[in-house]
Amino acid sequence: MSEKVGFIGLGIMGQGMTHNLLKAGVDLTVWNRTRSKAESIVTAGAQWADTPAALAHQCDIIITCVSDTPDVEAVILGEDGVLAGIKAGALVIDMSTISPHATREIAAKLAEKGAHMLDAPISGGSEGAAKGTLSIMVGGDVVQFDRAMPFFQAMGKAITHVGEQGAGQMVKLVNQVLVVITGLAVSEAMVFAQAGSLDLEKTLAAVSQGAAGSWMLSNRGPQMIQRDWRPGFTIDLQQKDLRLVLEAADQMGVPALGTSLVFNLYRTLQQQGLGSEGNHALVKALEHLSGFRVGDGV
Amino acid sequence: MSEKVGFIGLGIMGQGMTHNLLKAGVDLTVWNRTRSKAESIVTAGAQWADTPAALAHQCDIIITCVSDTPDVEAVILGEDGVLAGIKAGALVIDMSTISPHATREIAAKLAEKGAHMLDAPISGGSEGAAKGTLSIMVGGDVVQFDRAMPFFQAMGKAITHVGEQGAGQMVKLVNQVLVVITGLAVSEAMVFAQAGSLDLEKTLAAVSQGAAGSWMLSNRGPQMIQRDWRPGFTIDLQQKDLRLVLEAADQMGVPALGTSLVFNLYRTLQQQGLGSEGNHALVKALEHLSGFRVGDGV
Repeated sequence: MSEKVGFIGLGIMGQGMTHNLLKAGVDLTVWNRTRSKAESIVTAGAQWADTPAALAHQCDIIITCVSDTPDVEAVILGEDGVLAGIKAGALVIDMSTISPHATREIAAKLAEKGAHMLDAPISGGSEGAAKGTLSIMVGGDVVQFDRAMPFFQAMGKAITHVGEQGAGQMVKLVNQVLVVITGLAVSEAMVFAQAGSLDLEKTLAAVSQGAAGSWMLSNRGPQMIQRDWRPGFTIDLQQKDLRLVLEAADQMGVPALGTSLVFNLYRTLQQQGLGSEGNHALVKALEHLSGFRVGDGV
Repeated sequence: MSEKVGFIGLGIMGQGMTHNLLKAGVDLTVWNRTRSKAESIVTAGAQWADTPAALAHQCDIIITCVSDTPDVEAVILGEDGVLAGIKAGALVIDMSTISPHATREIAAKLAEKGAHMLDAPISGGSEGAAKGTLSIMVGGDVVQFDRAMPFFQAMGKAITHVGEQGAGQMVKLVNQVLVVITGLAVSEAMVFAQAGSLDLEKTLAAVSQGAAGSWMLSNRGPQMIQRDWRPGFTIDLQQKDLRLVLEAADQMGVPALGTSLVFNLYRTLQQQGLGSEGNHALVKALEHLSGFRVGDGV
């Protein structure tokens, strides 16, 4: 791994990912909007760049892992952004979850400078980032995918090339459609079971193994019964991703009936100040509508 | 198993169940609205009763496995029904999927004659009925549950006592809420992925193992891509069960946003004559709304 890597975005995900890159022996330079968040990784051996442009000027591979579409646009296309410093032949890997449409626009601007781009959004949460077990869904040129593979392997486990530029983001959005509507299934079922005065533990045991089964049911169902709202993924972050789903669905001309419903239900929870709870707190929106409370009398 | 068993309802499920009871050495009497459907089991050694009342008069345990709430009411409460012939101490086991509310009303009428009742709806389809691998969710008195256990074991594998009278039906409805909304998740995700020109096989592979995963995704997702609409469970039967869910939700005063949405989408498919297709043909309702067709160009 002789290529120099720059990493932009030292949030909850970037912290684990950069430490794993360093551990793998990568020559690493970092930049973050808030410099203090870089202290840990700089102490561990990474170099600091003063701007994204300066970072890009020094690096062969530039990884971005920030919050949302405007953040990626700012660090790549903005003043002193990556685009201003990038070298021909360099590779930008965006590991944020952002708009597939915006991804293709950014890729086109990088291409004008002779630079490449992969979209490589991740799932697995901060725990997966820390442990190096992220799932990585990659869109873009296969040659660039192969080039990036050793670095992906330092950060993740299930690394899948899913198609052309933007396809990684699109698959991530498909993942989120599945997560939230399956979460609605579990939420509606739990409130229905509660209203029917069922023993919720026995009910879960009776239905989890067959055609009704899902990761959300087996993992978040018991948390709902225990009213444990600690986040694997927060409502606020989930809502950001659903906005991307609805935006993409609108651009493609496809309805998203279930996702829209969940988006609106999450909105009511955000209004109540519950945005930092786990996405399975969706059940609370149905509780508020009905007056039944999952786990009461259990 | 010295108790004499009567079995009412020789449909697609009852055929397999009665043959498995006979194989287990049960002394079996049967009745069915259409007598010709009893030929196979009578040839195999079962006795025929001329009415449900006559059957009840001869038997200690009476199993009903018919289509819907009115059918159970007809064979138990109707003219020459089970109630007219039943002996004190006898046990009625209803293995149909019907209204939990109606179940409790029927049980009360049987109790007036000194007879017991269990509700024991099943899942696993005609294949599970034939193989004796049904899942059985049982509501009612534990002593009666223990009494029925040897007969359940002749017909099924996962046999769970889930609570009081009506609880078996309620858990079955919870199961159906989960099945259809998880099915909506898979359907919406597949149409979204198709609209995004994704490789659907790669997409499934990338998302099936994590938080987005479900039995419906792993089993019905590939069928959708192959446009294989053979039923594990038909839209018409699913719709019958959803009507029970919505009726129970209404009686309990609990909203059922996701189930209502799926009910309405299935209605459009029934109007198009697709009621005998598998419940995963739900994706066709979203295709009709959008103009995208899953599997095109794959």
